[in-house]
Amino acid sequence: MAPPNTIQELKDIANKLRIDSIRATSASKSGHPTSCCSAAEIMSVLFFDVMRYKVKEPRDPSSDRFVMSKGHAAPILYAAWAEAGLFPPSELLNLRKIDCDLEGHPTPTLPFVDVATGSLGQGLSCAAGMAYTGKHFDKASYRVYCLMCCVENEEDWHGKPLGNKTDEAIAAIEARIVNKGANAIVPQPPPVDDAAPIDPDAKIMLSQPPNYELGQLVATREAYGIGLVKLGKGNSRVIALDGDVKNSTFSIKFRNQMGERFIECYIAEQNLVGVAIGCGTRGRTVPYVSTFAAFFARAYDQIRMGAISQTNVNFCGSHVGCSIGEDGPSQMALEDMAMFRAIPGATVFYPSDGVSTERAVELSANLRGVCFIRSSRPANPVIYSNNETFKPGQAKVVRKSDSDAVTVIGAGVTLHEAMKAADTLAARGINIRIVDPFTVKPLDAATILACARETGGKILTVEDHYPEGGLGEAVCSAMSDEMDVRVRKLCVPRIPRSGPPAVLLDMFGISAKCIVTAVDNFK
Amino acid sequence: MAPPNTIQELKDIANKLRIDSIRATSASKSGHPTSCCSAAEIMSVLFFDVMRYKVKEPRDPSSDRFVMSKGHAAPILYAAWAEAGLFPPSELLNLRKIDCDLEGHPTPTLPFVDVATGSLGQGLSCAAGMAYTGKHFDKASYRVYCLMCCVENEEDWHGKPLGNKTDEAIAAIEARIVNKGANAIVPQPPPVDDAAPIDPDAKIMLSQPPNYELGQLVATREAYGIGLVKLGKGNSRVIALDGDVKNSTFSIKFRNQMGERFIECYIAEQNLVGVAIGCGTRGRTVPYVSTFAAFFARAYDQIRMGAISQTNVNFCGSHVGCSIGEDGPSQMALEDMAMFRAIPGATVFYPSDGVSTERAVELSANLRGVCFIRSSRPANPVIYSNNETFKPGQAKVVRKSDSDAVTVIGAGVTLHEAMKAADTLAARGINIRIVDPFTVKPLDAATILACARETGGKILTVEDHYPEGGLGEAVCSAMSDEMDVRVRKLCVPRIPRSGPPAVLLDMFGISAKCIVTAVDNFK
Repeated sequence: MAPPNTIQELKDIANKLRIDSIRATSASKSGHPTSCCSAAEIMSVLFFDVMRYKVKEPRDPSSDRFVMSKGHAAPILYAAWAEAGLFPPSELLNLRKIDCDLEGHPTPTLPFVDVATGSLGQGLSCAAGMAYTGKHFDKASYRVYCLMCCVENEEDWHGKPLGNKTDEAIAAIEARIVNKGANAIVPQPPPVDDAAPIDPDAKIMLSQPPNYELGQLVATREAYGIGLVKLGKGNSRVIALDGDVKNSTFSIKFRNQMGERFIECYIAEQNLVGVAIGCGTRGRTVPYVSTFAAFFARAYDQIRMGAISQTNVNFCGSHVGCSIGEDGPSQMALEDMAMFRAIPGATVFYPSDGVSTERAVELSANLRGVCFIRSSRPANPVIYSNNETFKPGQAKVVRKSDSDAVTVIGAGVTLHEAMKAADTLAARGINIRIVDPFTVKPLDAATILACARETGGKILTVEDHYPEGGLGEAVCSAMSDEMDVRVRKLCVPRIPRSGPPAVLLDMFGISAKCIVTAVDNFK
Repeated sequence: MAPPNTIQELKDIANKLRIDSIRATSASKSGHPTSCCSAAEIMSVLFFDVMRYKVKEPRDPSSDRFVMSKGHAAPILYAAWAEAGLFPPSELLNLRKIDCDLEGHPTPTLPFVDVATGSLGQGLSCAAGMAYTGKHFDKASYRVYCLMCCVENEEDWHGKPLGNKTDEAIAAIEARIVNKGANAIVPQPPPVDDAAPIDPDAKIMLSQPPNYELGQLVATREAYGIGLVKLGKGNSRVIALDGDVKNSTFSIKFRNQMGERFIECYIAEQNLVGVAIGCGTRGRTVPYVSTFAAFFARAYDQIRMGAISQTNVNFCGSHVGCSIGEDGPSQMALEDMAMFRAIPGATVFYPSDGVSTERAVELSANLRGVCFIRSSRPANPVIYSNNETFKPGQAKVVRKSDSDAVTVIGAGVTLHEAMKAADTLAARGINIRIVDPFTVKPLDAATILACARETGGKILTVEDHYPEGGLGEAVCSAMSDEMDVRVRKLCVPRIPRSGPPAVLLDMFGISAKCIVTAVDNFK
């Protein structure tokens, strides 16, 4: 084993990293060399003395982690890895080729970047999640390092490559290097291999199937908690995090049975999401984050960046829509489907009963990318048998006849309103088709189209959400290239008020009564 | 003038407020009496000794402001106002009637509430904006008080009204009251009337019309800065705020000419938005907030709550879409239209040249509710004459013939890509109709439909945005009830990478070349 690097050697490496950063940014004609250079000594000491990692296995589970949360300084991270031997230093001269974000924000298309941190100030939460995972879940000896900085001054913001000053600057730095030869120094000693390997393709399943009576009243938020407990029993990597509303989201059921795998993040949703993203890096855990769906608006930037980080975190947002009632509009999520649908690669579950909610929890554990489960406050009847199977992008036709006048698509509380409307209409001899989309993204366009064709081309969507970006627009979008299909939407058209849920559903146009009227008027 | 209240009188009032809060929450069977009671002395001293306000004019410009940023404590605010004489104390027994948020978050449907603060921790930024406005813009003597608390413990979260313990609790508190008679105490002395009255209906106009040559290259982000300066010259209430990117959003033009009306909030977007909302309360200022559009994701909860607060703040988000190029995906706004369209009552401008951008700035000053202006990084040709007039919800047909095969709708960079595509197609004898929507919300469905009917029912939307919630879905939604109209969408289908803008437009399917192919394939 090689002896540790001397202080002079570390100083030399720091200056080499400076030169690498200047060359990389000058060659790219883009970037922030000064922001990089100010971190040179820290990077040298971390990567060539302190940290334990495997150059040839950048995502090795037992290696120390490094999170670059200093804005614009990514090129010096690439420089450190190049000097350490991860990729040829010559590649630093063409950062575009390796798909770097040239503003200096690391992107996880590079294998040694666990989280993207281009939006400032998010790295520390992610690092905290990684460290918590190392200590409490992996019980391993790896360490997590996070390099911070949260304000740039005006001069730095548009940092410029040095241009024709490049050679002069490099010469000045080279003059300070004692050991001018090629750098043969590698991190030593290697990490302790004490983080257990995981099989990322192992299927994660509920320990027991759903167990309800048809017609039994259960809120989907409660079924989320029930499903999460079963999922946790089925796989030790499943963890849960909550923003101090665990008795409302029902993640408390998980906490009560598997408290060692529950992280209470209190009312700090941005940190909550960041910690979950950190916990999920390298597949060490399968995180479930729950809070009121409205409060994910507080962490939308973290969720957006999580997608860029290729995170597999699952989010459950409860208390959606005006059906929460008295708590009032500040607590009602009415834009959450628009938020989560616009996340690339996301899966948006909107289950309508206990059985489908438990299966949504199970399916989300096995999907790549961000998953969102939209759960509701009111209790509604179980409509599926316990052995019903579900898939993302597979809708269920829950009511059907040979003479349906309109296809009505609802989810959550509005699916149940649609079923009440169907009863009222049936008493007058009018039948309607009812479709439960199960996932709003991906949407089962084939089933919806087939139903529309059997119901005179008429589709009525009903959602406890604002008009934009939710179920209605998803259906409009999916049907937009079809000639003989028309879609009409019922949704919450303006900011609601406080009131009893049934009153609000009626007042804001998404109750059974409103569905009956819309079906009658759909000529 | 009445003498100041004695300490005993203030103690008595505090206990009366306690009793009011208990009665109000018990009568409503909802709410958090303990959270209210803990603030009783502070509220008594503020409202009956310290603060200067006019009971009969709750939104008087010279009155002191109060921001309740303590979670769940709104009933004691209502109690203080009831005791002060704003409304009959009997109304406290039916909080639902006055449309209170019963979780205890004040809503601005009550005239004495300037900002809604149901999502915790937002009140201080708003109060800071109000105070900054009082000191620097109004130069008035009013003061701003903000009552805080940012974590609840588990026991408090679901605070319960006292139920059958109500009478017992009230009796215990009543026993401590010395002055048991009706409270005749009013705030004194009145405020100094030194905040100038404003005319909220006065039209705010550019000091000079746009001044470009047709075909002149200008980025809409730069035209935003030019328009903002003219607007500021036209009205002294116009202010600008930025998140440390003023030389990129071009709000620096405003700072350079009217620095006293510019607030630099640095890289803290949530505070930036909160301060702007505070500045805009009671119509004291007309705030324009600018940053990279992607960074508004960080403040989405503040924007959502701003809408509930009935704010009139205007947002300009620059550097949208993959057309920003090398900076990479963390800096590209590709979900911002989904975010802002889902804000109730919002107007979403997406101007495509310098003339229309300046008019978007002007129009937004005169609209109620949240306005969002989506500005682009690349310079593109001016396409409108300087005397062209614009209205929200009024699209422009920018290219038209008698034999158009498809209606193409683009905005920003994609409108210019559509025009290039039109030239390519015209050389092959194929004409296309091109529509500039100007506002994506409201959308000019009538013009779009009329164009579609003249182009075989075929609409192609092209947007530098993800598939969900943007221009394409807005058009799908607007056309969804039409039988013979088909809509196809070009948009950014996945997370982009870093690269030259023209390369990225092509790689992600929204370039002129891609439009030509889509038109050819639209049979």
